[in-house]
This record gives sequence, C-alpha cells and structure tokens, in this order.
Amino acid sequence: MPDTPLLDKVHVPADMRGFDAAQLRQLADELRAETIDAVSTTGGHLGAGLGVVELTVALHHVYNTPDDILIWDVGHQCYPHKILTGRRDRIRTLRMGGGLSGFTKRSESEYDPFGAAHASTSISAALGFAAARDQQGKQNKVVAVIGDGSMSAGMAYEAMNNAAETTGQLTVILNDNDMSIAPPVGGMSAYLAKQVSGGAYQNFRKFGREVVQHMPRPFREAARKAEEYARGMVVGGTFFEELGFYYIGPVDGHDMDNLVPILKNAAAITDRPVVVHVVTQKGKGYAPAESSADKLHAVVKFDVVSGKQSKSVSNAPSYTKVFGTELIKRAAIDPSIVAITAAMPSGTGLDLFGQAYPKRTYDVGIAEQHAVTFAAGLAADGMKPFCAIYSTFLQRGYDQVVHDVAIQKLPVRFAMDRAGLVGADGSTHAGSFDIGYMGALPGMVLMAAADEADLAAMIATACEIDDRPSAFRYPRGDGVGVEIPELAAPLEIGKGRIVREGTAVAILSFGTRLQESLKAADLLAAHGISATVADARFAKPLDHDLITRLAREHEALITVEEGAMGGFGAFVLQFLASEGALDAGLKIRTLHLPDVFQDQDSPAAQYVTAGLDADHIAAAALKALGVEKSALSQRERA
Amino acid sequence: MPDTPLLDKVHVPADMRGFDAAQLRQLADELRAETIDAVSTTGGHLGAGLGVVELTVALHHVYNTPDDILIWDVGHQCYPHKILTGRRDRIRTLRMGGGLSGFTKRSESEYDPFGAAHASTSISAALGFAAARDQQGKQNKVVAVIGDGSMSAGMAYEAMNNAAETTGQLTVILNDNDMSIAPPVGGMSAYLAKQVSGGAYQNFRKFGREVVQHMPRPFREAARKAEEYARGMVVGGTFFEELGFYYIGPVDGHDMDNLVPILKNAAAITDRPVVVHVVTQKGKGYAPAESSADKLHAVVKFDVVSGKQSKSVSNAPSYTKVFGTELIKRAAIDPSIVAITAAMPSGTGLDLFGQAYPKRTYDVGIAEQHAVTFAAGLAADGMKPFCAIYSTFLQRGYDQVVHDVAIQKLPVRFAMDRAGLVGADGSTHAGSFDIGYMGALPGMVLMAAADEADLAAMIATACEIDDRPSAFRYPRGDGVGVEIPELAAPLEIGKGRIVREGTAVAILSFGTRLQESLKAADLLAAHGISATVADARFAKPLDHDLITRLAREHEALITVEEGAMGGFGAFVLQFLASEGALDAGLKIRTLHLPDVFQDQDSPAAQYVTAGLDADHIAAAALKALGVEKSALSQRERA
Repeated sequence: MPDTPLLDKVHVPADMRGFDAAQLRQLADELRAETIDAVSTTGGHLGAGLGVVELTVALHHVYNTPDDILIWDVGHQCYPHKILTGRRDRIRTLRMGGGLSGFTKRSESEYDPFGAAHASTSISAALGFAAARDQQGKQNKVVAVIGDGSMSAGMAYEAMNNAAETTGQLTVILNDNDMSIAPPVGGMSAYLAKQVSGGAYQNFRKFGREVVQHMPRPFREAARKAEEYARGMVVGGTFFEELGFYYIGPVDGHDMDNLVPILKNAAAITDRPVVVHVVTQKGKGYAPAESSADKLHAVVKFDVVSGKQSKSVSNAPSYTKVFGTELIKRAAIDPSIVAITAAMPSGTGLDLFGQAYPKRTYDVGIAEQHAVTFAAGLAADGMKPFCAIYSTFLQRGYDQVVHDVAIQKLPVRFAMDRAGLVGADGSTHAGSFDIGYMGALPGMVLMAAADEADLAAMIATACEIDDRPSAFRYPRGDGVGVEIPELAAPLEIGKGRIVREGTAVAILSFGTRLQESLKAADLLAAHGISATVADARFAKPLDHDLITRLAREHEALITVEEGAMGGFGAFVLQFLASEGALDAGLKIRTLHLPDVFQDQDSPAAQYVTAGLDADHIAAAALKALGVEKSALSQRERA
Repeated sequence: MPDTPLLDKVHVPADMRGFDAAQLRQLADELRAETIDAVSTTGGHLGAGLGVVELTVALHHVYNTPDDILIWDVGHQCYPHKILTGRRDRIRTLRMGGGLSGFTKRSESEYDPFGAAHASTSISAALGFAAARDQQGKQNKVVAVIGDGSMSAGMAYEAMNNAAETTGQLTVILNDNDMSIAPPVGGMSAYLAKQVSGGAYQNFRKFGREVVQHMPRPFREAARKAEEYARGMVVGGTFFEELGFYYIGPVDGHDMDNLVPILKNAAAITDRPVVVHVVTQKGKGYAPAESSADKLHAVVKFDVVSGKQSKSVSNAPSYTKVFGTELIKRAAIDPSIVAITAAMPSGTGLDLFGQAYPKRTYDVGIAEQHAVTFAAGLAADGMKPFCAIYSTFLQRGYDQVVHDVAIQKLPVRFAMDRAGLVGADGSTHAGSFDIGYMGALPGMVLMAAADEADLAAMIATACEIDDRPSAFRYPRGDGVGVEIPELAAPLEIGKGRIVREGTAVAILSFGTRLQESLKAADLLAAHGISATVADARFAKPLDHDLITRLAREHEALITVEEGAMGGFGAFVLQFLASEGALDAGLKIRTLHLPDVFQDQDSPAAQYVTAGLDADHIAAAALKALGVEKSALSQRERA
C-alpha cells in the first residue's frame, strides 16, 4: 500500500477545500498512487482515472460537492473521485459482487448525483440538474466532465445545442485526451487535435492586435468580431461558441496551479454556459500506462512495479474474436461484405477485420444512431453491411433499426455482442432487452448462438439473408470449446435442432444457456426424469414445427433465454396460444432474466442469481412436473 | 385542375434535363400549382413542399436521378418530387389506403432510394450510399436534402462528423427555412438565422481583402487562415467547415438562375463533402400558406382560392388536447411539474401547457435522446418531469430510458402519444412497439388509456409515482366522449377494472381497444355467449389478481392490445405460465398488431386489417371456444 499521509486525512472533499496549491499537488500524487494500487488488486479501468487525478482534486477543491453537482461522463475515470468521496475503504472491492460499481452510481454515494456507464449522457443530465436548480431558485453549481471521444455522440451535441437557452450556469469540462477507448474519429476529433497543436494559442493575441490596428475605420466593428471569432477559432472554441457556450482553454489538465484558478473563474460565470477545454494525458503519471498503446484503458490485476497483468486462462477463443475471425473468412469470398463499428473496434473484434480489410471497415465514432442508418444506406446500394454493436448500445440506435432498416426490409446484419449478463460491468452494460426489442420487428431474423460454432454458422446465415434484416446475439466471454469448421455452413432459417432426445420434459434453449440446459437434463436424468433438450437458434422466425412437437410430446416445456421478459419465451407462448396448443394444458415455464437490474458480480454468480444455471433450470422443470425433490428417487419415468 | 403545359410533358426527370432557365422557372410554377391543387383534394403536408419547388426542379435538372441518389430528409417536402418522378397520376391518392405514401418510400419508386418520415436520417443514409458507391467503384453522385430543424438532432451531427473521413463526394443541401414544424430552437438555429441576416455575405470579401492587405509579413499565413475562417464565419459555414465539409452559401432557394449553377458547381466537387446552404421560404408562392403562422405545414382538404380548410367534426377532444389540458390542471396544484417536448409542442398538446406555464416548458429541439436524459436530470433533483414524446419517436431515446431513467429508478413520466396505429401517416409513425420495449424494463409502471377519462386519471397517477419511472400511452385522434372529472383521481397502481361481468369468455383489453371489446361482447351476447370485459389499465405491474380470476373463472381469455407481439399479452402469458395457470389448460389468445408494418389507411380500415375491431375480437373468442359461427344459435351458456 502506498504511503499517503495527506490523503489519509481527506475523508470527504470538504476536508481539502482549505488546501493550498502545494497540498493539492501532494494530494493528487497520493491519490494517483492509491488509484494505481487499488486497481492493481481489482482490475478495472485505469488509464482514464490516471488522466484526471489533478482534475478530480481541483474540481472537488473548487466546487462545493455534493451540493454542487458534479457529473462524470461514462464513469471510466471515476475511481479517483470515489476515493476522494468517502469510498476509499471499499475501493478494493471495485467491480466485485457486493462491491463498488466500476461506474458512478446514485445509490452508492450522494457524490454521484447521476450514474453513468454509456457515453455522452453527462451534458443532458447536467442540464437537467441546472434547469431543476433554476426552477427551485437554488444557487448550486452544475458541472459535467466529458471526454473528447464522447463528444462524437449525437446526444452530447443535442445537449450542447440546448444549453444556452435553458440555463445561465452550466460548466462543461471537455477532457481532451485525444484518446477515447479507440483513437477518436471524425471531424470533431481532428478539429480538437488541430487546435491544441502548433502554438497557435500563443500567437493569437498578437495576431488579434495586428488585425484591429490595421483596420480602416469602416471595418473596425467587423474586425472586432473577427478578432473574437479568430480567438475562438485559433484556440479551438468556435465550435462551442457557435452552440452558445463561452469557451475557455485549452488548459493543461495536470498543472494544478493553472487549473484551480481557471476552474474558479469558470465557476463564477452564471450568465452563460461555459466549456473549459482541459488537455490531459491518459495514463498520466504511471510509466507502464503512459507507454502502453491503449494507456492501460482496462486491465486485469497487475503488478504495480512492472505493470505486468495477470493472464487469464481460457480453453476457447472469445466470441468476440470468433466473430472477427469468421467475418474475415466470409469477406475473403464475398467482396460485398463491409463492417461497421461505433468506436468499439477491439470490443467487437472488428480490429482484426480492420487489419485484414481496412477499406471495408468503418469506425463511425460513438454514434450508434448514425451507424445503423449508415449501414442501411450501404445495404440499400447492394453491400452486405455487418453492423457490430453491443446489445446494450444498440438501444441507442433502436429507432434507426425500426425506421431505416426494418420498415424498408434492408439486409443489414446486426452482430450483437455482450448479449445477456456481462459480469463486472453490471447492469448498465447487460444486454438484456434485445430479444424483445428486435424480435418484435416484422421481418427481422433473430438468432442466438449457443456456442462458437453456432456463431460462425449464424454469420454464414446472415451473409445469405439478402431480402431482410437479420441479427445474431452472442455473449461476453469465451466460447465453450467446440470446434469451428473451416468454413461454416449457413443454417436453415427458422429451424432449431434437438440436441438430446427425452420424453417427460423439453428444455428449449435460445442461445447461451444450452450447455446449462444439457447439464440440467443430466440432473433430471439422475433423478429418473427424461429430458429433451433443444436449441432454438431462432427467436424469429420461430421454428413452429419444433415447438409444436416439443409441446405435444412432453408433459412440460421449459424455455430458457438470457434476456428479459417479453422475449423468446413470450414469443413461444404467443405462438402456442394462437395455435390453441395451450387449450388442453401444457406445463410451460419461460425462464428469463429476472425483472430487476442485476448488479455486477462474477458471471457464474450472476447466472445463479438470475436462476439460469443448470440447478435452477432443473428445479423449474421439476416444479412444473409437480415433482417434489425429496420424492425424486421414487419417481420413475421412461 | 391547373393549366400545366410544360409539366404535362415531364413524366420523369430526364424529360427536363435539357430545359433552359426560363423553362425551369415555368416548370417550377406549374409544379407549385399542381402541388397546391393535389393537396387541396387529399390534405397532407403542404408548406414544406411549396418551399422546395424550385429546389426540387433544380436538383432533378442538375443531377442524373435515379442513378444519382437524392434523399429527402423527413419527406414532408417530397410531394413535388413525387409529381416529377412518375407519380403524378397517383398524386391525388396521397396518404390514402392503397395510395401514395405521404413520405418517400423505396417500394414506391426508384427515385426514392431511401424512405423517410422520422427526421434527420438523410445524411447517414446518404453517406451509406456514398460509401457503397466508393466500394463498388461507381461514379454516381449522392445528395441529401435536410432542413435546419432536422439539424438539431444528434444523428445528423454524428453523420456530418463522419462524412469527410468516409467519402469525397457527398452533397448536403441545408434547406434553411428557419421553420421546422415548430419554430426551431437551440444554438444551432440561432447561429443559422444570424448568419443569413444583415448582409454580411456581401461585406465579407471586402473585409477579407482588407485583412490580408494590411497584414505585416510574419502574420500573412495566419491572416490567410483567418480570412478563410472569417469567410465561413461571416456567411455561416464555419460550423460545417469544422466538421470537414466545404461550405457554399447562403443561396436563395427560389432563384432558379442562381440555384442551378451553384448546384452544378457543388456536384463537381468530389474530393470533399459539400454543404450547400439554401435559404427557402416555407409555403412559398401560395398566399394562404405564406400568411399562415405554421405556413400550412399540415392541412386537411382545403379550398384553393381561399385556403380555407374543411373542418373535421368531433364530439370529443383529442387525446393530445386532453393531455395538455389535464397537465395544466396538475401543474396548477403542483409547482414541481415541468414538461418536455422534442420539437413537437402542438403535436403533444404542450403548446397549451407552454402558454400556461412558459417557464416550466422545455422544447429541446428534435433531440429525443437529450430530452429523456434531460428529464432524468430534472427528476434527480426533485422535479416532476413529464416527457411527452410520440411512441414512435421515443424509440430514438430508448437507451436513455433504459440507462438514465430505469436503471436509476428516476421518476420521469413518459406521455406516449400516437401509441398504436396512426392512419394516414402509415407504418413509420405507428406506435407499435412501446408496450414491449417499455414493459420489459424493471421497475417501469406502464399504463394505457382506454378513454380520455382514463388518460386524465393516468396523468394524476403518474404525478404521484415518485419512486420510479412511469409511462402512459394513448392513441392518435379523438377521445370516446366520456366525461372527464374536474380533477381526476389517481388510479391504484397495478389494478385493472372489470367493465362488464360475464361467464364464458373474458376479454382483457389494455388501452384503446376497450370500446371494441365491449362491442365484441355485445356481438357474443347476441349469439348467447356471456363475456366479461376488463380494462387492464396496467401492463406493468400486471394486475395478478384480476388476471388470475379471469383465467380461473372463464373457459377462454382473450387479451387485446394495440401493439406488437411481445407486449401486454405476452406478459399475461408469462405470468400465467409462471403460476402454473396454464398447466390444466386455458383457451387463451393474445390479439395484437399483426407482425407486419401496416401501410397508411383510414383508422377504421387499419383496425380491421389488424384484426382488432369488434368483429375480429368476437371471432377470436368464438374460435377459442370452439364455437362454429353457424352453430352459435344452438349454443346456450349461462
């Protein structure tokens, strides 16, 4: 544990409000050391937090938190903030079951007035707080801290565009580290990078004076305006000024002596929203992070001295990697395949695809709405776009899926990674709702992979579906270890498969819970109950023959899916009801994610909590059959 | 019918490619007359189309449509385009069943390469076409036409931000009429308005020359850059230049002699995306439209000479008006109530609220993502936000509903107007999916109003729900004519009501189809079948007692909802299955919207097509009971 004499005295931010500049610098150094040490034991997001250590100290010093509202965008960078705001004693439980969330969270602390995890929400939320304050005649300040990567998202623009007419006091700290998870993309990013380079800031005042000095009288006013514009232009503020903000910057985000007075000045402005453009270095102050390509954005446990991370052991490739690899195979034989990611090339496996086919890979930035409709445009002109977006982030593009893709029956292929529970990232990143929200759309083909071979087959299937949209979901983490064919054959659309034949109960799995369903069948067999296990593969179109047969030939039918209510099981029920297949009775149960937002935990523990492990599946079957567990040994079934 | 000798000769755009300037002007005049006459007989969107008559002619003259891709944003303005592109013979079937869509539609014409209806999709789609063209080595041009109002949406910004790095040829026509459906809001709008005023465009070149002339040598380069920036700044292009576009404008959109050569110049630029800023006047060239406050944005049938619209006759206020009126009543007794609209004040009834409480009304622009999270921020600081967004547009803010509202259990109240089928606006505007996508969210309270009194009660209920989000849906159109109490009492959360007691079959309606369900019960009664009719009111939490009782006490249970599969009926089935209530058999059927995107038609016809009218509901009950229609008279039930 690092030696942190000053930090030890800071239990809440009020304890540091009286600190002088030297003390603040020391506090920042100690906070950085504590952050590194804590994350070395828990893993989690490191680089972003290290980049804002000074900013975190300065903000809590200048602003009267928690009365003043401080909102961190995304929350990757909030660990130092948590340490400073009464959570240091739990900081080594980060991202663990029952521990601190890896993001800001309202239920965790009054210093987290608004939770985050998805990017680019902070300005909207802050503007809401500012409006509420104005309505109530309060005087507290509102601050949002947002990275340059998050500024590529439309909702950040929507909020900026709405700020000046809504309130007079809102401070947006643009944390410009020129490094979101992936290198930032887009004109906005290039613009920011350009402005902070080349010493332009130093030259502008001289230039401005020259302009005014040499102007003939009639153009004096124009010159004054030009000077004002040019100032913003040269130093990078025009974009924000045009949206109604007062621009301050760029400011060195690691120079505490500069940062504190500038933040104080900004806080004093109450007649116009302010953006303070702070330049920081991701991974700052920790050599292994500074020298790493991704600035140690997200890490597992590591050795503090060497920065060496513990390797995880796996027998199978991740689904993400399988997706990237298989799509490369398909692209080799089909030149119309292109891939789209919304700022998540490595998260989606499209980094691999991008290396193989750089010109056929589009990283559109944190811009899921655009990603989906851009893909629709590509599809409308004969390309085969694979739009790879995490299930939870595709929620950002839902209207575009409905309006631009599904209504027009355009063959966009949605690769929905991180479908289902996601472990340490918790409820904000869980892909819980896609089965329902995609499955409800007319014409959609919706698949879920039970293993990595299935995923390969579904990619092949999606390649062939040329007359309507398709989507396939697969989970976070590693495959189950099955062999993937050299070139997977496409599946018959709308057809599931029976994996194990039985008689008494049928377990119909959609996607990831197939292995647990098979284990559940073993458990049932051990108790003398014969179970059929089927892999639905498709939630849409449903395999009517398979479902009808399972319902007819078994006393009970258990559907299993890693998704919320209103999904696969619901579709099965609605189909069976419509056919009259429930009229005479069927012991049907639909197992799905519980109707709560599940906090972070180990994946295994999350499945138990969700009731989607083998034990719970078997128990549900037993209960449906009316078999008491204690009576199992006496029961004999064919 | 107007006299249109030149237009009569133009069957497709190729017929006018050789026209000279005088002919193009005449063609535009005839096209305007034809548009006015057609809309006078059909109703529909008028003002937007009149504003782009010259632009439409110029674009089809300059560009080689349909090989060149022309995408109209929203599509409100596309009637002149339809007339010019082979659909004149059907233009008087606009928005009717079996007729032309009121928007662009791929299935309707090769001149509609990408359909629209929701705002702000055009740049993303166009960029997709441009990327596909580049991939395929084709040379066709791609053009998007987007209004200034649509530019407030985040997805337009996302697309602009992604354009320059994606392609060298894309032309965005910014159709700046300073008038989206409501007056445009936000910094972006003010910026545009400022730039086109004051003759700045005329002065800038002089100014630029002066700047360079008087510069000392060391600042020459800086001056050159400043001139370049200043040009954009003064005439309005800097915002776009910063996003990587080449800016041209502003251009008078009604001056054909100017418009055509400028569009030709823009079309020739293939190394950088171009924005052409065209200033138009909504309603141009038709005096009643020009003098109307909303420029006759949307009209019913009208008299061409006077501009006088046929009044529709109704016995009941619209649900929209009821919402606005009732929220005013609540706001009078609860100062914490505020209202949020995303550029639809009159569409949502918040124009009324805004007149009563201007400072408690927030119009955030076409910005649903921001609207939702802004509301979440307001709720987090103790306000009671009512976020009024059409069901179909709330899809734009779905992730924000999940991530910022539901996960944090923030008491945002969602008023979901236009839920269900919407008649003439067709599939793009139908509110089909909200029951499923909102009902799947843990903690959400989800209600649907069966009549206007119910809507008032649900507003009262939402006011009182302070510990979690709530949503209530209600349809387009007029109420059923029931009396609304002076001040509605809140409902008991999660409790439905039995409207009519019967014995054989239970019809459980969620929302709008209650009246038809009662009529269906009459039809059944006439055949000797006694039907219970219940109004569920809540899809979440479900009324377990009511549902259990209906299932237990009736041979058949029919759920009815104006929404897609995976919604209310699915939730009822999953509940009954989980309780074992289907084990012994229940003739249950879930009636919902069919699994297709229904085209525009009269509301009555749409309900019949959907199978949600009284006849179909009764027929479903009969079929579930196994009663042949012919055998009805012999059947006697208690």
